[in-house]
Amino acid sequence: MTRNEKINFATPSGFPEFLPGEKRLELYLLDTIRKVFESYGFTPIETPAVERLEVLQAKGNQGDNIIYGIEPILPPNRQLERDKSGETGAEARALKFDQTVPLAAYIARHLNELTFPFARYQMDMVFRGERAKDGRFRQFRQCDIDVVGRDKLSLLYDAQMPAIITEIFAAINIGDFVIRINNRKILSGFFQSLGVAQEQIKTCIGIVDNLEKIGEAQVQQDLEKSGISSEQSRKIIEFINIDGNVDDVLDKLKHLAVNLPQAEGFNLGVSELEAVIDGVNNLGVPSQRFCIDLSIARGLNYYTGTVYETTLIGHESLGSICSGGRYEELVGIFLGEKMPGVGISIGLSRLINRLLKADILQKLPPTPAQVMVVNIQEDLMPIYLQVSQQLRRGGINVVTNFEKKQLGKQFQLADKQGIRFCVIIGSQEAVNAKSCLKDLSTGEQIEVPLSNLATTLQQILQPTPSHGG
Amino acid sequence: MTRNEKINFATPSGFPEFLPGEKRLELYLLDTIRKVFESYGFTPIETPAVERLEVLQAKGNQGDNIIYGIEPILPPNRQLERDKSGETGAEARALKFDQTVPLAAYIARHLNELTFPFARYQMDMVFRGERAKDGRFRQFRQCDIDVVGRDKLSLLYDAQMPAIITEIFAAINIGDFVIRINNRKILSGFFQSLGVAQEQIKTCIGIVDNLEKIGEAQVQQDLEKSGISSEQSRKIIEFINIDGNVDDVLDKLKHLAVNLPQAEGFNLGVSELEAVIDGVNNLGVPSQRFCIDLSIARGLNYYTGTVYETTLIGHESLGSICSGGRYEELVGIFLGEKMPGVGISIGLSRLINRLLKADILQKLPPTPAQVMVVNIQEDLMPIYLQVSQQLRRGGINVVTNFEKKQLGKQFQLADKQGIRFCVIIGSQEAVNAKSCLKDLSTGEQIEVPLSNLATTLQQILQPTPSHGG
Repeated sequence: MTRNEKINFATPSGFPEFLPGEKRLELYLLDTIRKVFESYGFTPIETPAVERLEVLQAKGNQGDNIIYGIEPILPPNRQLERDKSGETGAEARALKFDQTVPLAAYIARHLNELTFPFARYQMDMVFRGERAKDGRFRQFRQCDIDVVGRDKLSLLYDAQMPAIITEIFAAINIGDFVIRINNRKILSGFFQSLGVAQEQIKTCIGIVDNLEKIGEAQVQQDLEKSGISSEQSRKIIEFINIDGNVDDVLDKLKHLAVNLPQAEGFNLGVSELEAVIDGVNNLGVPSQRFCIDLSIARGLNYYTGTVYETTLIGHESLGSICSGGRYEELVGIFLGEKMPGVGISIGLSRLINRLLKADILQKLPPTPAQVMVVNIQEDLMPIYLQVSQQLRRGGINVVTNFEKKQLGKQFQLADKQGIRFCVIIGSQEAVNAKSCLKDLSTGEQIEVPLSNLATTLQQILQPTPSHGG
Repeated sequence: MTRNEKINFATPSGFPEFLPGEKRLELYLLDTIRKVFESYGFTPIETPAVERLEVLQAKGNQGDNIIYGIEPILPPNRQLERDKSGETGAEARALKFDQTVPLAAYIARHLNELTFPFARYQMDMVFRGERAKDGRFRQFRQCDIDVVGRDKLSLLYDAQMPAIITEIFAAINIGDFVIRINNRKILSGFFQSLGVAQEQIKTCIGIVDNLEKIGEAQVQQDLEKSGISSEQSRKIIEFINIDGNVDDVLDKLKHLAVNLPQAEGFNLGVSELEAVIDGVNNLGVPSQRFCIDLSIARGLNYYTGTVYETTLIGHESLGSICSGGRYEELVGIFLGEKMPGVGISIGLSRLINRLLKADILQKLPPTPAQVMVVNIQEDLMPIYLQVSQQLRRGGINVVTNFEKKQLGKQFQLADKQGIRFCVIIGSQEAVNAKSCLKDLSTGEQIEVPLSNLATTLQQILQPTPSHGG
């Protein structure tokens, strides 16, 4: 074959792909996350990668997102079909940039076929035309759950979210983390009580939300620049610095409320937060796994109540590894119905990329095979095939080596791929219905009757992570 | 909220989505397929949905496929960035229309990081701008496996494919099926021996491949129309009608070869087919699951040896439910290297759609939840939450009903979603650390101490299909 020198076969910038050991890690994480989601009764859905552009832009506009539109390219021999294909000019279509607007559309499309509260998970790819830098991808997988109610939705759904986050990250075993919980009504209520004008509150919340990135002094400066008095900004800084365990913080908030004018919003936020914290406690989430952080607000404008961020302790620079909150006016946009929801999101592609780089997670071996049946005598191939099948029926992942090579080379090939065991059958073993089982991790070699081989291996091998336990 | 009346929130034509019970069925099938793939040591990869257009068109052109190009749409507030974004004009990019060209690109991109023979599976979405009819989708999931060698690749990899197909469709339990095996060298060798001109052989193979669709008479007519003599076409019809069990057919082919002029190609095909059939037998594939069918060729030009089709008996009109073959000159296109491969493909989205319509598969219940903890007394919520968590730790999928409703309504809500069990705890039960376990499928109700509840339920519940068993 002649190589086509002209083709640049690299992935397009911002569209990376995993090596097998990384992809296997992703599947293991997806299995783990899915298992936790399903244990709380969340059901899977998947919306198409492509939606009508008007759907994606339904929230007023597309936010700051660069959306990818799609346009059919006809093959050279079918250029004449352009006008007949029903594929051109009909409707503007584009790739989805998040799971939230498509969730709203999905609910609108299937309203009468769904049961409410509707608890769904989604692990699809989303697409954003970002500049590819900073570990930001243009295609990435996002793992979202949301519960959506019709008209009302218990705060206990908000309480379940930290329990779910805790179980996921404990199962993944990435070290200590803490879920920071707040309620946006507390922030906006406090600003209102201070006399901050209604139209300025969102700006203030945005500034406060930047605390971790820009520091206290800058927050104060930005607040004052936006027209907040120095007296007010001092009080705001003092307020967002309230800390202690959850009971302390709730006590301080209630104490503060006593002298606060126009405190309805504030009080509603505090009572919501208390109900959520109560639920989190009753769900048995260990107290070191969550705290109240009055400074977090989640930049996105659509959150209206509870908000969450998750910080990996010792790796704060990674930013929040799982975030979300409660919203009121998002899911109902297509129906004109009030549909309150609460949800969280894990940006899985980015998370894996960062956790691998920080050496917090390691990729898996590049193959799911656990055993290699080696080939030392071509005429014994029927036995090699039969033994391989016998092991597979025993739930073991097996490769049979079809190419006859020096035995040492075959061990190397297995070892390179992280395959721990080799099964060796020569004519002597074949006659006696035995095999030689070599553990490449120790070099040890034991004789095992073929009839016991599957059982012996089952006992040694732990369930592979790729089967999600 | 006011409904935005103008937005058409339907999915774009050709981009359907599953309801939860259908999506759960898809996940169950994906789990099942993946388990079989991994048991043979196939490792997962996923290539980006977006590739450079020149990569997708590398096989001379894009075949008959309408490809979707992608173009960034900047949000209104960022129109000025158009030229600076590095997102425009740089390179033509498009959505992949199959997994084969991207596999070739993946191997070229990671040649030195992969181990050969490289056995990978892929279950990604692909995109084709087809006219949306006939259950053809514009976005669909394709489950592919391929083994790719450098320079050479044992025919035993070809033999593994029917074993894998058999295990998948037996596990999915969709009734009787038969895998039809052929070797294109036999067909082209036979045509060559008949004296058909070299440049006409591919056309003839294409006509023969249509046998099932158009019938024998039409095949003969088409052959003659393309310049084949009636004597030749009669012999071709006779040839593709050779049948019997695999040994019979192989015998007849060898017998035929004796009097065939220029039979090198033909004989090579027969000996390859014999080696493959031998391997299939040694792998223990039941004899009723495969046959030799000399008429199948797979339309795609790139197959050069073994080819497979799978027919669901009694549902022949569905067409082949799993197909593939051996190719020589496909994977190496970017490297200019000979890289023989063999693979099969299941068009999963289309298959699910057709099997659901034909009532061969049924969708699953719309939720993975197996148990509902009902809410009959608000002040007992802490106990409901604790019991729910205890069951989840026991591996059971649980929803807690947060909304207080009439008990009958709560049973209805559970039943509607296919949740079989309700756990009822009133003040009496709470005091005695007991619960009432109601089986909605029978109406039976038993008293179970809370300490035994998880164990009792574990014993009754089979592993759910959504966990891949």
